[in-house]
Amino acid sequence: MQGRIIIISGPSGVGKGTILKEVMRRDPSLRFSVSATTRPIRPGEVEGVNYYFVDKPRFEQMIENGELLEHAFYAGNYYGTPEKPVEDALAQGINVVLEIDVQGALQVFKRRPDAISVFIAPPSLEELRRRLNGRGDTAPEVADLRLHIALQECAIAEQYQYIIINDSVAHAADELCAILSAEACRPQYRKIHLKEEV
Amino acid sequence: MQGRIIIISGPSGVGKGTILKEVMRRDPSLRFSVSATTRPIRPGEVEGVNYYFVDKPRFEQMIENGELLEHAFYAGNYYGTPEKPVEDALAQGINVVLEIDVQGALQVFKRRPDAISVFIAPPSLEELRRRLNGRGDTAPEVADLRLHIALQECAIAEQYQYIIINDSVAHAADELCAILSAEACRPQYRKIHLKEEV
Repeated sequence: MQGRIIIISGPSGVGKGTILKEVMRRDPSLRFSVSATTRPIRPGEVEGVNYYFVDKPRFEQMIENGELLEHAFYAGNYYGTPEKPVEDALAQGINVVLEIDVQGALQVFKRRPDAISVFIAPPSLEELRRRLNGRGDTAPEVADLRLHIALQECAIAEQYQYIIINDSVAHAADELCAILSAEACRPQYRKIHLKEEV
Repeated sequence: MQGRIIIISGPSGVGKGTILKEVMRRDPSLRFSVSATTRPIRPGEVEGVNYYFVDKPRFEQMIENGELLEHAFYAGNYYGTPEKPVEDALAQGINVVLEIDVQGALQVFKRRPDAISVFIAPPSLEELRRRLNGRGDTAPEVADLRLHIALQECAIAEQYQYIIINDSVAHAADELCAILSAEACRPQYRKIHLKEEV
């Protein structure tokens, strides 16, 4: 049986990573998609684990060749999801998680209408503001800009199939696991073993 | 928030009742829809609990008036789901379970495209045959007829949103609960509390 693409988006600081870590702990069969980027490798990062690090001409060639499921240009660098590793995993029946922003997600919705899409939202504006300010060392203009981007992203949330409110990591992980269990019950992915025996 | 209709179908003997009992135990907020029927009341049955018992002219008037979400004629009697009690519960935010056959379900699909639909299938043909034969006191022709009906029903299963294989009651109940949790994450039923605060 073919695996599924699971798109996870949500504003910066909403806790996507923590929720995904907990869901992966419960279901280690899930695979994380590795993005390609043109930004320089940072100390401690590993090629093919954190990102596939490629140069700009190569990235633009990937766009040209249609090798990317989605891509975006952000703060002077390209980011994108190579389709081949995702397809290889799906063919093996593995579900692949794409943690991507709303712009990338909208591209995948069109290209892969069979993908499961989940938006992770903060419980309230106050909580989002608190999380965006992080350790309190963020300049007010930067914090305002982040909040503005986050609110824009939340406005697109209704185009996702599911919305999870991250009120607690355990509860959000419960809901994401429930979505994966429910989606496994879709008729396309669940054959009834009766006809061939008749 | 408006409640949801949950349609549960599946062949006779597949274990719908047992699964629903377990799901209701875990989530007592669910409500069971009570059907109307023209068949005579049996000892121990209670009006408004097991069925609404009505006479044929009244039932035909209900059909005429469009008071039924679905109805069927079976073994000389009418069976149907009155819409009013379902609507009243939904308006109170209560999820309502309709345990109905595939013919009734197809009617509700059209009338209420927002309903959640779940088909419960047997794990195998052999197991279905075993369950249909029940206590071993069934005449072979009756058993064959029941099997024929069950296979016809399973052929319609792909029109449901979800299929659960009843390999064990606990597992089937887990899946039904997961479906209900996942469906509660649909954007129409989950507002993000950000905009009004801005």
